[in-house]
Amino acid sequence: MTFIAAPAHLSTADGQFEAQFKARLHWSADTDAAIEQRVADILADVQQRGDAAVLEYTARFDGLTVPDMKALELTQAELKAAFDSIPAAQRTALEAAAKRVRSYHEAQKKASGESWSYRDEDGTLLGQKVTPLDRVGIYVPGGKAAYPSSVLMNAIPAHVAGVGEIIMVVPTPRGEKNALVLAAAYVAGVTRAFTIGGAQAVAALAYGTQSIPAVHKITGPGNAYVAAAKRRVFGTVGIDMIAGPSEILVLADGTTPPDWVAMDLFSQAEHDELAQSILLCPDAAYIAKVQESINRLLPTMPRAEIIAKSLTGRGALIHTRSMEEACEISNRIAPEHLEVSSSDPHRWEPLLKHAGAIFLGAYTSESLGDYCAGPNHVLPTSGTARFSSPLGVYDFQKRSSLIEVSEAGAQVLGPIAATLAYGEGLQAHARAAEMRLK
Amino acid sequence: MTFIAAPAHLSTADGQFEAQFKARLHWSADTDAAIEQRVADILADVQQRGDAAVLEYTARFDGLTVPDMKALELTQAELKAAFDSIPAAQRTALEAAAKRVRSYHEAQKKASGESWSYRDEDGTLLGQKVTPLDRVGIYVPGGKAAYPSSVLMNAIPAHVAGVGEIIMVVPTPRGEKNALVLAAAYVAGVTRAFTIGGAQAVAALAYGTQSIPAVHKITGPGNAYVAAAKRRVFGTVGIDMIAGPSEILVLADGTTPPDWVAMDLFSQAEHDELAQSILLCPDAAYIAKVQESINRLLPTMPRAEIIAKSLTGRGALIHTRSMEEACEISNRIAPEHLEVSSSDPHRWEPLLKHAGAIFLGAYTSESLGDYCAGPNHVLPTSGTARFSSPLGVYDFQKRSSLIEVSEAGAQVLGPIAATLAYGEGLQAHARAAEMRLK
Repeated sequence: MTFIAAPAHLSTADGQFEAQFKARLHWSADTDAAIEQRVADILADVQQRGDAAVLEYTARFDGLTVPDMKALELTQAELKAAFDSIPAAQRTALEAAAKRVRSYHEAQKKASGESWSYRDEDGTLLGQKVTPLDRVGIYVPGGKAAYPSSVLMNAIPAHVAGVGEIIMVVPTPRGEKNALVLAAAYVAGVTRAFTIGGAQAVAALAYGTQSIPAVHKITGPGNAYVAAAKRRVFGTVGIDMIAGPSEILVLADGTTPPDWVAMDLFSQAEHDELAQSILLCPDAAYIAKVQESINRLLPTMPRAEIIAKSLTGRGALIHTRSMEEACEISNRIAPEHLEVSSSDPHRWEPLLKHAGAIFLGAYTSESLGDYCAGPNHVLPTSGTARFSSPLGVYDFQKRSSLIEVSEAGAQVLGPIAATLAYGEGLQAHARAAEMRLK
Repeated sequence: MTFIAAPAHLSTADGQFEAQFKARLHWSADTDAAIEQRVADILADVQQRGDAAVLEYTARFDGLTVPDMKALELTQAELKAAFDSIPAAQRTALEAAAKRVRSYHEAQKKASGESWSYRDEDGTLLGQKVTPLDRVGIYVPGGKAAYPSSVLMNAIPAHVAGVGEIIMVVPTPRGEKNALVLAAAYVAGVTRAFTIGGAQAVAALAYGTQSIPAVHKITGPGNAYVAAAKRRVFGTVGIDMIAGPSEILVLADGTTPPDWVAMDLFSQAEHDELAQSILLCPDAAYIAKVQESINRLLPTMPRAEIIAKSLTGRGALIHTRSMEEACEISNRIAPEHLEVSSSDPHRWEPLLKHAGAIFLGAYTSESLGDYCAGPNHVLPTSGTARFSSPLGVYDFQKRSSLIEVSEAGAQVLGPIAATLAYGEGLQAHARAAEMRLK
C-alpha cells in the first residue's frame, strides 16, 4: 500500500499565509461532556468504595479479572525478572539512558533546587527551604503507546528530588505486561507498581484505597479519561500539565542533510495522526529537497500510514523571508520540540523565547533528546511552553519560606506592617506587630 | 455585645484525640454544581462576545454600568493619583514593604531562577534557559477583602521575573475604588488595570477581548466563582493554586509572652470565620495562659465577632506530649503559616517537613511576614503545602531545555536511542539517531 505525505507548503510572503497558518495550528482541547461525567462518577466511586471499585473497573475496562488487589501489584522481584528477561542490548541501553537522565537532573537540582537563605542588615533571616514530596504517583500508559522511556523520565527526577515513595500505575489490558516498561521501572527505582489504569488509577492514587497509598502528586501522560481525572483531582493532589498532541518545529538554514530533517519530521509524525511536524526555512530550494526526502523515505517506514496522515493533516513546510522571521513564527507557536538545524545555532537561540526543549545543531536529533541525552522528554505541548516548563526535579520538590525576624528587625518592620494592616482593617495583624515593639 | 472564643482544648494523650483532631481539620473543597455551570456559561459567553459580555456581567454583578470598556480601565495617571491621595505614612509603608518584597524575590531569582548549562565529556551541551512569561494577569478581590498587600505580593515577583506586561483586574462594586489597592498597583509596577472581577474577568484575561489582552498566566485569590473559573481555564493559561481558607499553626515551647501568641491566633481568625488557628504546645499551664489572653484581649478587637466564630468553630489548643510530637502533628496538617514560637527555633525547624512559610522565634509574627518581611504571603492552604510552594519568581518564569549534541556525542547516544526506539516500535526515532552515525 502506498501512502502520500503531503504537508502544506506555505510561504510567509503569501497574502493568505496568516489564515492558512492559523488553520494548520488549530487544535482544540475541548473536553467531552460525556467523558467528564463518567470520570466524575468513577472518581466518586473509587473515593467511596476503594479497592472494590478499582477491581470492578479493572475487570470492566481492562478485561482483567482478579480476586483481590494483591493480584494487581507487581513485586520488586517481578520488575527485576522483567529486567533480566530482556535482551542484553536493551538492558545496557536502559541503564545508559537512566545514568544520563539522572546526571542531568542532578545538575538541575544543584542549579535551581537547593535551599537558600541570607540575613539582612538587622540580622533577620530570610530564605526558602526546599524539600522533596513524600509520595508521588506516576501514570504510565499501557497498550500500544507503552513507553519505557517515559518511566525513566517521570521516575528519575522524582528519585533525584529525594521523593520517599514512587508509586507507578500501568494498565495491562487482558493481563498483557510490557517487559520493557517493567524493566524501566526497575532501573528507575520505582517503589511500588500496580497494574491499573484509567480514571480509576488516578482516583486510587489521589484518594488512596485500602491497598494503594494516597500520593501527593500525579504525573505522566494518559488518554482523555486520565487527563480528565487528573484535572478533577488537581487541588487534592498536585498534577503536571495536561498533555496535548506532540509537536516538532524545525528551524533550518539549509545546511543540514535534508534526509536528516525529513526523518526528524517523521519521528514526530509517527507518534500519532494528530502529532504536528513543521519546518520553517528561508531557502525554497532546500524545502523542495526535504519534500523529496520525505517522498523517498516514507515507503521505507513501518509506520508510514500514521506518518502520512499526520504530515498531510497537520504538517507544514513554511518558506520564510529570513531566519529571523522563522524565529518569530516559532515564538508564536511555542513548540514542544524545537530543532535549530543550523550551522550557527547559537546565533538563533537567543531569539527563541518559548519552547519546551531546544535542540541545537544538525547532530541534535529530537530522538536523542527523547531517550538519552539527559533532559526530560515530558514537555509542554500545544503552546503551553508560553507558561510552563519541562518536567523536572522542581516538580517533585516544594518550598517553604523561612523567616526569622530579629528583635532589631521587629522594630523596623512592626510600624510598616501595622500601618498597612490598619489600612486593610485587620487590627489583630497590626496589634501582633505592635506587641513586638519595645 | 460580648463574644466568646472557645477553641477546642485537645490533648494527644486523650483516647479521643484522633477523632477530635480529624473533625477539627475537616474542610471540604467540594465545588458547587450550580456555580460550576454558571461559570462555564460566563466563560463561553466572554470567549464568544468579548467586551460586550464583560460589560453586561459587570453591570449585572458589580452594579456598574458604563458605555464601553475604556471606562473600565484605570490609567497610570489614576493609579498615581491614588498613590498621591493616601496619607504619607501609608505611602512610606507601601514603598518600604515593596522594597523588601522586591529584594527578597531578587535573591530568590538569583538562587533558583537563572539559566544554567554544562558540557559533558563529549562536548555535548546540556542545560536550561529560564525566561520570563510575556504577559500575566493578577486577580485582586474587591469589596471588603480588598488587600493592597496582595497587589504587591502578586505583582512584584512577576516584575522581578521580567514579565513584560502585568495586567491587574479588580472589581469595583458600584464604582467604589479602594485607593490603597490602586496605590499598591502604582508602587508594584502594574502595567494596565481594569475594574472588572468575577468569572468574567478571568475569562477576559484567559481568552482576551477586543480591549483586554490575553495573558499566559493568572494568579491571585478570589471567591468561589473566580476559583471555579481559574480551574476551568487551566491549560489555556497557567494558574497558581486554588486557595482555601487561611490557616496558622503555632508551635510553642512556652517561652513567648502568651499575649503575643493569642494575638497571632487572632490575626488568622480575623480574616474569615472559616480561617483556622491552632496552637500546639507541650506545656498545659502555658495553654491555659494563652486561653486567658484570648479571653482578655478578644473584647478589645474590632473584629471580635469573626475572631470568636473562627476560633470556636475551627480553632484548637492542643496539648502535646513533647515538642517532637507537636512537630509530627504539624507535618500531618501541612499548615499555610507555621510559627515556631520557641527560644530555640532552629532545633525544631529541621523536623518540619510541610508548611507554606515557617516563622522562626517569638519576634517573627505572621503579620510581619504578611506585609513586609520580604517573602511572599501567597501560600499553599488546606494541606497543599505537601506538594506546592509559595508564590514566587519561578511562577512567572518558564524553562526550556537546551541540548546541543556534539558529533562525538551523537556517536555515543545514537546506538542507545536507536535500541530503545526500536524497543518502543518507533522506527523513525531510531533512524533519525542512526543517520547521525558515521
